[in-house]
Amino acid sequence: MIVLFTDFGPAGPYVGQMRAVLARDAPDVPVIELMSDAPLCNPRAAAYFLAVLAGEFQAGSIFLAVVDPGVGGDRAAIALEADGRWFVVPDNGLLALVARRVADARCWRIDWRPKVLSGSFHGRDLFAPIVARLAHGENPPGESLYGSEIAGGAWPDDLAEIIYLDHFDNAMTGMRAATLAADVRLAVGRRELVRARTFSNVPQGAAFWYENANGLAEVAVNGGRADHELGLSIGSDVRILAT
Amino acid sequence: MIVLFTDFGPAGPYVGQMRAVLARDAPDVPVIELMSDAPLCNPRAAAYFLAVLAGEFQAGSIFLAVVDPGVGGDRAAIALEADGRWFVVPDNGLLALVARRVADARCWRIDWRPKVLSGSFHGRDLFAPIVARLAHGENPPGESLYGSEIAGGAWPDDLAEIIYLDHFDNAMTGMRAATLAADVRLAVGRRELVRARTFSNVPQGAAFWYENANGLAEVAVNGGRADHELGLSIGSDVRILAT
Amino acid sequence: MIVLFTDFGPAGPYVGQMRAVLARDAPDVPVIELMSDAPLCNPRAAAYFLAVLAGEFQAGSIFLAVVDPGVGGDRAAIALEADGRWFVVPDNGLLALVARRVADARCWRIDWRPKVLSGSFHGRDLFAPIVARLAHGENPPGESLYGSEIAGGAWPDDLAEIIYLDHFDNAMTGMRAATLAADVRLAVGRRELVRARTFSNVPQGAAFWYENANGLAEVAVNGGRADHELGLSIGSDVRILAT
Repeated sequence: MIVLFTDFGPAGPYVGQMRAVLARDAPDVPVIELMSDAPLCNPRAAAYFLAVLAGEFQAGSIFLAVVDPGVGGDRAAIALEADGRWFVVPDNGLLALVARRVADARCWRIDWRPKVLSGSFHGRDLFAPIVARLAHGENPPGESLYGSEIAGGAWPDDLAEIIYLDHFDNAMTGMRAATLAADVRLAVGRRELVRARTFSNVPQGAAFWYENANGLAEVAVNGGRADHELGLSIGSDVRILAT
Repeated sequence: MIVLFTDFGPAGPYVGQMRAVLARDAPDVPVIELMSDAPLCNPRAAAYFLAVLAGEFQAGSIFLAVVDPGVGGDRAAIALEADGRWFVVPDNGLLALVARRVADARCWRIDWRPKVLSGSFHGRDLFAPIVARLAHGENPPGESLYGSEIAGGAWPDDLAEIIYLDHFDNAMTGMRAATLAADVRLAVGRRELVRARTFSNVPQGAAFWYENANGLAEVAVNGGRADHELGLSIGSDVRILAT
Repeated sequence: MIVLFTDFGPAGPYVGQMRAVLARDAPDVPVIELMSDAPLCNPRAAAYFLAVLAGEFQAGSIFLAVVDPGVGGDRAAIALEADGRWFVVPDNGLLALVARRVADARCWRIDWRPKVLSGSFHGRDLFAPIVARLAHGENPPGESLYGSEIAGGAWPDDLAEIIYLDHFDNAMTGMRAATLAADVRLAVGRRELVRARTFSNVPQGAAFWYENANGLAEVAVNGGRADHELGLSIGSDVRILAT
């Protein structure tokens, strides 16, 4: 299975153009559009999201992940194999947390270049053809790297920031809830938030935080819009208060 | 065929995560994303939309429908078979109109629970695995119910409200046009609207109502934005004027 | 492969309803949603976009393209075969540039009508069943036309306007970059823009134009929002400055 994770937007044509390449080069492999609204041009925030989402997928899944503000510049393209799952991405930190959280990761710097490579759409021109090769059982066409050589090594293990606002206007953080004490309070701006199990455990209109279905600490308002009511956007700081 | 009907949003990752479960548990069954912007957290409005959309699908189709503001609370999960089509949903009224409009519906309360059940994403954890079982010809794992026991029994047969605003900013009502006299006028706010066959039958800029392609009465402005020009949002009242 | 190109919006239900018809009538043919946010109700702008996107697809691809403000009126439905690719569309100019840029195009006016034809959703009721027939190798059910008889013949070869704003807020023009001199400057409003190869070749915050990955001249701001900062929307004029 090929899994698409990009900031290309929920509409097109970029995701569709990548799908067309995959349909041509790997027609028998199913493709899932996991998300197309990853944090825009923000590989750091996206890295913390991708790391929790990827854990759900079975060995053999191949991720084509693109959040790539430096496209056309000199950042490398890399492939990584982690616990049987593959990732093909720009080397801008997007895989930093995936790599760090697995026991055994193997990395390659992609040397292959297509005959025609646009300056702004490597997802279609470079990454998709590589993904199709991996789907056929080929090795990545490039040079082995040490995991420590990929970008993002200095980023923290968990990110105390808002990394995503969902369709319900809930605000995910880059912190795994399992790393936080059960009774910890979080603060965003001047607001302190207690933990709850889920929406139906707090009054209508109450702000709280909880462990979301992907294991991240998430800020929400029951029946309301956390982003508006708490003034949150991607990159907003989240503080952990002493208990 | 598996049909997804949710309020999860046009982007991700929630639809993609449900697709991943379906791809794992029912890999040979095609999946169609019917809509992912069903009326947000509004199972009543969604119920009137789902009922007209579902009618187009063939016997054997299995709907995974989630508009579920009470997720994690004590509402039940149900499965329903109606004219050969299956539905797996939270029991919050979302199926009330589907059930009422078929000659013969069979219902089950789902007793099965997965080993890991998040408090906020039953679409992935509970409903998708059940849908995959049904796709394999299994019966719903639960207890038979009477149709009268499912939620939403007190809702009207047609809903005189705006239930959806589409990408063209047209405003659908929850009323089947076939239940309205041919020359009836509708009123929204202080505006009275006459009926037309379609857009090209009224002048540019004119507001009107018509029977949309799904059989619902819909309010539109030819070449304009009905929601803005008439001040409409989901839940706005629609009145039927004496002819 | 069936390729969907519409202005139906990134959410549903219209794309999903067309997919349901295709799944019923051509279940073995893969479907790609190329884009669902084509320029809204603007077949002229859409025509210049479709013409560059279509060029990437292999012979045998069948495009179901709908940008159709005149649906329900007297515009015809047409099918066109161009270099082995098929297109089924409303005859409102949407294919004008596709037809003009191929050596050999064959056209048909679709005479067939389904038993039930809504006044507002020909994508589902008329075009999708025709596309399924073509996917089975049938000829279009209608009368041959000369290419010169289809709509849009008076439109220019390249359109000096903004035709699309993407998820990154870059603004595509309807001009193929290959038709412009290498050192040409473009002007939008009072701003003059020089050409760059790609984003990483200009300073953060700089406005420029470049040849995008689809061969069109595109206006962008590195790390910024071209639409907001330059006041651009679909239809904005673009001027070519003497060098």
